[in-house]
Amino acid sequence: MSAIDFKLLKQDGKARLGSLTTPHGIIDTPIFMPVGTQATVKAMTPEELKQVDARIILANTYHLYIRPGHELIARMGGLHKFMGWDRPLLTDSGGFQVFSLSELRKITEDGVRFQSHLDGSYHTISPEGAIAIQEALGADIIMCFDECPPYPAEYQYVSTSMELTSRWAKRCKEAKKRQDQALFGIVQGGMYPELRAQSAADLREIGFDGYALGGLSVGEAPNLRYELMECCSGLLPTEQPRYVMGIGTPEDLVEGVYSGYDMFDCVMPTRNARNGMLFTSSGRINIKGAAYTEDSGPIDPECSCYVCRNYSRAYLRHLFRSGEILAARLNTWHNLHYYLALMTDMRAAIAADRFEDFRREFYAKRQ
Amino acid sequence: MSAIDFKLLKQDGKARLGSLTTPHGIIDTPIFMPVGTQATVKAMTPEELKQVDARIILANTYHLYIRPGHELIARMGGLHKFMGWDRPLLTDSGGFQVFSLSELRKITEDGVRFQSHLDGSYHTISPEGAIAIQEALGADIIMCFDECPPYPAEYQYVSTSMELTSRWAKRCKEAKKRQDQALFGIVQGGMYPELRAQSAADLREIGFDGYALGGLSVGEAPNLRYELMECCSGLLPTEQPRYVMGIGTPEDLVEGVYSGYDMFDCVMPTRNARNGMLFTSSGRINIKGAAYTEDSGPIDPECSCYVCRNYSRAYLRHLFRSGEILAARLNTWHNLHYYLALMTDMRAAIAADRFEDFRREFYAKRQ
Repeated sequence: MSAIDFKLLKQDGKARLGSLTTPHGIIDTPIFMPVGTQATVKAMTPEELKQVDARIILANTYHLYIRPGHELIARMGGLHKFMGWDRPLLTDSGGFQVFSLSELRKITEDGVRFQSHLDGSYHTISPEGAIAIQEALGADIIMCFDECPPYPAEYQYVSTSMELTSRWAKRCKEAKKRQDQALFGIVQGGMYPELRAQSAADLREIGFDGYALGGLSVGEAPNLRYELMECCSGLLPTEQPRYVMGIGTPEDLVEGVYSGYDMFDCVMPTRNARNGMLFTSSGRINIKGAAYTEDSGPIDPECSCYVCRNYSRAYLRHLFRSGEILAARLNTWHNLHYYLALMTDMRAAIAADRFEDFRREFYAKRQ
Repeated sequence: MSAIDFKLLKQDGKARLGSLTTPHGIIDTPIFMPVGTQATVKAMTPEELKQVDARIILANTYHLYIRPGHELIARMGGLHKFMGWDRPLLTDSGGFQVFSLSELRKITEDGVRFQSHLDGSYHTISPEGAIAIQEALGADIIMCFDECPPYPAEYQYVSTSMELTSRWAKRCKEAKKRQDQALFGIVQGGMYPELRAQSAADLREIGFDGYALGGLSVGEAPNLRYELMECCSGLLPTEQPRYVMGIGTPEDLVEGVYSGYDMFDCVMPTRNARNGMLFTSSGRINIKGAAYTEDSGPIDPECSCYVCRNYSRAYLRHLFRSGEILAARLNTWHNLHYYLALMTDMRAAIAADRFEDFRREFYAKRQ
């Protein structure tokens, strides 16, 4: 009995319209999940996340394990209560951050020993440990502990790594105790389709509540990413959610949905917002540009968000140049609205059997 | 014909309950004005300022003159429209910042030549220039350009400076053109009561829509400040608003109201919030304290603000230690709520003829 229930409502080509029921509510798919690394989606309150139509957010296990600690969060009533978010939550396993943030790390069959990026202290996370941390945090969906190989990487390295990830996945499933959390397996295998196929087969044999592609958006060209997503979606069960981790650009999301994936997450809308880069229906703009000095128009004339309804590009440029916190807030608000409205538009297009047209129009507007 | 109308509704001792009508709305007095230095009260939206019951906010002429420029703001429709704030606004004259932020400055009869703290460029602000800048910004209440002497300062220096401020005040009144803005005079004179008396007499002879005390909270002991406020309130007209600039602590506000002042502003609630210092009914706390690590209670059990209703001290401590923008936001929200609720409580106490009791209870809670 899974803690979640996924209903595939319809397909338009490979693009899928679905409904994912979790212990904290129902999510229409395909969906983008804003990233709340340290128990907060940077610069946003839970109420504002609801205003931009966030249905589920992601928190980072590694960061919360390091600070303030998963046991503290458990004693405070779990992550939902701690951060004041009553809708669904997903936690990654910590694997990606262990490999990307730790300066020193040692991988063994048992797990990974690494140094904290904050204070240099030593820690070990095993598959069982990653599950225990995620059970303490209490997200609706938790992830297997995996090794995320670098890009580019040799076939032999990726193959060995993928096999380790499969063995760890089995241990994660066996270690899991809580019945109110769903566990997703993570398909690895780098840019080698045959390794991805083996990984997917291994994970399907173990059996998970959903399946993710890991190890993407690590430096590869977009076309390679899209080819890999395309070839992998056929390897995954149709009756369960498919999640591409850590992507991406608006184009990535459109291509991901086109290839049949249901869930996405990325720091791009929030991180870029803090750097002044804003997404619009006709492409990206950088709000610090001199062209906006006396521009009384909104970020995007086609956007209905709070920011576009209330503030001019001139004011947003002034806030950004002045280093004001409100700049980070309003930019983040707009970008998250853009991402979530894009998902809403894609769901509507699938429902209307016009996803191909939607995709063509999406690219036409950006030219 | 003044652009504002002040009604003194009642007095309880020297404490005054009033109603100040401005072109952008009515303000119940005594009132605290949050500071929005760069056309934003740091970390807050206009909607949130209304939620904490801000009736009027202050913007800094010097900062807006330097960036983005008062003429740009005028072309964008004025400061109210530029920052999306439709309630009353007050701008200072820039005098205080010219003296506190500029490394180089030269005072002449005509005005002050100074270097921008941002890029070292040279500028001159005269009394006429300060009025022109403030007319371009378009606040409901604007201030005379004054010299703010340092503390401590010799009698002779302060005397000469005060006389210059009086001459500048006359020029400010003569330079003012817009009929929809009120102009306040600024009483200077340092810590010398006789110079303050002369300054007040000079300004009253010129005639202003309201009167402010400048040059306080510049390093003097609180008791000296309170004595000076006490002696100066009798020098000012009863039928016009009295404003003490740049104070202060909650204690300063209580003593200011006690001495008969109506308006206050200070960066303390917002600046201290960003440093983790929070005001409560029983005194100040620093949220980074280890004592709050697993404290599931609110900042202040007596507080009804959004932050105290939704977040624990443990979560706020985590956000602050993690350097999260949400920490600055929530801390600022709480502190502004505290300051504005304090003013509401003082108005209620005056209305009920119990300000003496209120003041006694205020101090008793902090012991």
